[in-house]
Amino acid sequence: MTDARQAALDYHAKPIPGKLSVELTKPTATAKDLALAYSPGVAEPCREIARDPENAYRYTGKGNLVAVISDGSAILGLGNLGALASKPVMEGKGVLFKRFAGINSVDIEVNAESPQAFIDTVARIADTWGGINLEDIKAPECFEIEQALIEQCSIPVFHDDQHGTAIVTAAGMLNALEIAGKALDEARIVCMGAGAAAIACMKLLVTCGARAENIVMLDRKGVIHTGREDLNQYKAMFAADTDRRTLDDAIDGADVFVGLSGPGLMTADHIRKMAPNPVVFACTNPDPEIHPDLARETRPDVIMATGRSDYPNQVNNVLGFPFIFRGALDVRATRINEEMKVAAVHALKDLAREPVPQEVLDAYEMESMAFGRDYIIPTPVDVRLLERITSAVAQAAVDSGVARRPYPSHYPLKSVDDVYGV
Amino acid sequence: MTDARQAALDYHAKPIPGKLSVELTKPTATAKDLALAYSPGVAEPCREIARDPENAYRYTGKGNLVAVISDGSAILGLGNLGALASKPVMEGKGVLFKRFAGINSVDIEVNAESPQAFIDTVARIADTWGGINLEDIKAPECFEIEQALIEQCSIPVFHDDQHGTAIVTAAGMLNALEIAGKALDEARIVCMGAGAAAIACMKLLVTCGARAENIVMLDRKGVIHTGREDLNQYKAMFAADTDRRTLDDAIDGADVFVGLSGPGLMTADHIRKMAPNPVVFACTNPDPEIHPDLARETRPDVIMATGRSDYPNQVNNVLGFPFIFRGALDVRATRINEEMKVAAVHALKDLAREPVPQEVLDAYEMESMAFGRDYIIPTPVDVRLLERITSAVAQAAVDSGVARRPYPSHYPLKSVDDVYGV
Repeated sequence: MTDARQAALDYHAKPIPGKLSVELTKPTATAKDLALAYSPGVAEPCREIARDPENAYRYTGKGNLVAVISDGSAILGLGNLGALASKPVMEGKGVLFKRFAGINSVDIEVNAESPQAFIDTVARIADTWGGINLEDIKAPECFEIEQALIEQCSIPVFHDDQHGTAIVTAAGMLNALEIAGKALDEARIVCMGAGAAAIACMKLLVTCGARAENIVMLDRKGVIHTGREDLNQYKAMFAADTDRRTLDDAIDGADVFVGLSGPGLMTADHIRKMAPNPVVFACTNPDPEIHPDLARETRPDVIMATGRSDYPNQVNNVLGFPFIFRGALDVRATRINEEMKVAAVHALKDLAREPVPQEVLDAYEMESMAFGRDYIIPTPVDVRLLERITSAVAQAAVDSGVARRPYPSHYPLKSVDDVYGV
Repeated sequence: MTDARQAALDYHAKPIPGKLSVELTKPTATAKDLALAYSPGVAEPCREIARDPENAYRYTGKGNLVAVISDGSAILGLGNLGALASKPVMEGKGVLFKRFAGINSVDIEVNAESPQAFIDTVARIADTWGGINLEDIKAPECFEIEQALIEQCSIPVFHDDQHGTAIVTAAGMLNALEIAGKALDEARIVCMGAGAAAIACMKLLVTCGARAENIVMLDRKGVIHTGREDLNQYKAMFAADTDRRTLDDAIDGADVFVGLSGPGLMTADHIRKMAPNPVVFACTNPDPEIHPDLARETRPDVIMATGRSDYPNQVNNVLGFPFIFRGALDVRATRINEEMKVAAVHALKDLAREPVPQEVLDAYEMESMAFGRDYIIPTPVDVRLLERITSAVAQAAVDSGVARRPYPSHYPLKSVDDVYGV
């Protein structure tokens, strides 16, 4: 076993298993304390919640509690390893929720024999939490599952592999095109991959102004075109009326490449055929569609992003989901709608155009970072993410009518310590 | 609203809602830390769990995580208020799990249209945890639900309202009868109430040596006898071949009264008719079947227990479930069987016969406490509970063949800080 693998196992195993614990937030030292925490003290909050379910936000942890739920059918790049094997990822997501947005989370691994069984299971227990983050569920089942749960639940349900990825990608894309001197509504886009993240990315880019007819999407069989009869309804939305059939055909003259597919699928020959100032988002982890060194060597004019933390412009979901849920929870949004997603895109995009704080430079041991080819997306260590994205999402929820509470008076949040505004 | 009610609401609402938070147990300061906690570090633990599910205990929080699950159909003495309204109780149970046994817990509130839907829901998500504590589910559905989940899950499933109550009651009963100078197998027992707790108490007393034919159980309609045709299968187990029909009939000459029914249902006239040195466990909360002052005044020879913390001999489930789960988790028991329950009974019973530590006297502001009429059950503040019950339960699991790990080398546990033995 490599040192890196052993380090990962050790981190998870020692000195105690896992990464999270449940801790007490109220006094429990005396018998009087315990009589408040449990019987007979709990009776009164129970009655208040029975009288008005909204009181659950007042007397329980519901309002700051998100479930991270998976069936383990599409774990990172590992595929379908089953529900239990996804637990380290779900707990890891919980780590990020807490670390970046002060959100308590619990993981739920679901062994479901069908999408409907998964839906029924989650719908029956959804009242427990303030929001649901679906994770690592394979396409196309994930689309049906998310849609059904959004309709059946009164709390936000958000499949982060789709929308979190899409939001961060779209923010980076808007900045990349700005630098390339191109307009989104004229950009010719090739999307390599047609899974959950790819479809969500293209849908959100269209919402942001890209034209569907300028997008060519490819799956394992090549270009998704109107002549194919093997397409599910989600891929069919992006079927192109074209005689191009391969990446080699599709990439010719393209302005943008988005890769959410597999390692090494883009060659030097492919990138050579792209239009001037090509935008390449090669997002497969840990090995991208084309290595950034090869891309730059072949096309010095490239504007490139990857999922890697050791190269500039990391497309990382942690830039999105903690803050999106924070904003949604704090206004008790009933869902995370398109307006909130777009607000997150623009907040992220705009933040990258501001001067970079010294703490970020220090964290990356850089002399300077500034909006440009090597800095189109904020970094995860940027504390301003909490303030900007959370505020934007909360405001969009209020403006679009899905908030059940006004814009929080304790906003903007300057740190996770401000979360409760007390 | 009374001051006590307001204090209970304030405790739950201020300064932040609820009673529990989720906290990080591993370093997350640097990008390197986060790469271990999430991608790419999580991949290796995922692979190890896919290879062998037992590795979930090594690399995730599963082994120290118990779900507290309810449908809210029988909340304390409040009845069926629905799933969400039970959340303060379930979170309160989580407080006790952590406070007394260092166990992390999550609450799950289930909106199920049928017992089968509840069973299916919980069975599909059971892999997430190391154990399941069912709570506040009404009879008779709770019996079917627990039995099905025990059969379908490879982790302990324990309906505390049944077995926790039964274990503490049985321990106190054995000591009460010892003091009364009576043998359990000769004691004539009247059980007022025929719900989940009552049936479990009587079953466990029979396991401990009571004779079923010496038990008379009453529900709302009176004595449960063989002539009744309205009995479910669980009540039918205790149908007595008798012509007694009311509590007034049944109590005549009885040695033991166990009340798990409703406030004030036992009168001075009833207790007057009992045999010498009557044992009265009036356990309904917060107002017992007969007030302890009235009982003592009427029968100075009574040996009495209640659910109240302000009178001697409190039958309190917290004396059982945290330690029973602790022992079961630490040997990875596949279930909590009768042997483990009986071991808990005897550990609790025996502990009450030992000298009382100074800390307990201090907590109750007592000069002395010693085994006798006013001290038949240990108090919740007794730190020896963790050591004694946990060890007994773990040993019984090993001896009865349901443990998947040996008796822990770091036992006995002297405090919750010793939980991980690291």
